[in-house]
Amino acid sequence: MTEPCLFCRIAAGELPCHKLHEDDHVLAFLDLHPVRPGHALVIPRAHYPWFEDLPTDLACRITTLSQRIARTMKALYGVERVAMVYTGIHVAHAHAHLVPMHDVHDITSAAYLTEGPDRFTAPPSPPAGTLAATAAALRAGLARAG
Amino acid sequence: MTEPCLFCRIAAGELPCHKLHEDDHVLAFLDLHPVRPGHALVIPRAHYPWFEDLPTDLACRITTLSQRIARTMKALYGVERVAMVYTGIHVAHAHAHLVPMHDVHDITSAAYLTEGPDRFTAPPSPPAGTLAATAAALRAGLARAG
Repeated sequence: MTEPCLFCRIAAGELPCHKLHEDDHVLAFLDLHPVRPGHALVIPRAHYPWFEDLPTDLACRITTLSQRIARTMKALYGVERVAMVYTGIHVAHAHAHLVPMHDVHDITSAAYLTEGPDRFTAPPSPPAGTLAATAAALRAGLARAG
Repeated sequence: MTEPCLFCRIAAGELPCHKLHEDDHVLAFLDLHPVRPGHALVIPRAHYPWFEDLPTDLACRITTLSQRIARTMKALYGVERVAMVYTGIHVAHAHAHLVPMHDVHDITSAAYLTEGPDRFTAPPSPPAGTLAATAAALRAGLARAG
């Protein structure tokens, strides 16, 4: 990269953030465009583009901190669920979103919204043979990757 | 609970699934209503309602298996991103969704879709004072929880 990414700059203290936690490995701070109040991001200090690139110990640190934040959000906002989401949209520095779930569509999929924003629509279930072939392809890929 | 939950029954082999992986601790299988082909779920064998309830080692096993599946999906489907998502909708047995991201809204929020399904709308950024108060409340909650 020719210049540090946005989250690298936040981790380095070069850009401000509303910080919730920091240690030598990970950082948590508020999303500036929250889906719901409290919407937070957990990132590694080190730059890894995607969550699957994270070394095991670092991925687990993010998971553990996300669990702590989720428990805190439940107490603070009185929600039954908190979503933890890696999507990798916008900034290619692995980041987990933590979102207090006040509504089923606070975190959702366009595939669930085909009948409008007030409905939850399960996408069609493919034929069993199609699913079996998909599963076989994924199992083979997992076996190759070891 | 008066009867085992759906995912407990799948983990026990009482209900069929299109299995991708299983070991003594975790199981991965296809979602029957996929957002995209390959959409998979990773669950612990043991019943914990929410991801933040998972013991550290079990949460990390789910994360690590999810990373393996994400790498496999990237190779198989040629996507740049794979989402890993805990939302807890529908079945209160902690489960991570793995979804190959062909479109930015394959995993999204209703808050990002206020201008329609073909746009990405960042929700408004609250005033700095509001964000500061939110961050302070969350930090205090984290400190209390230890």
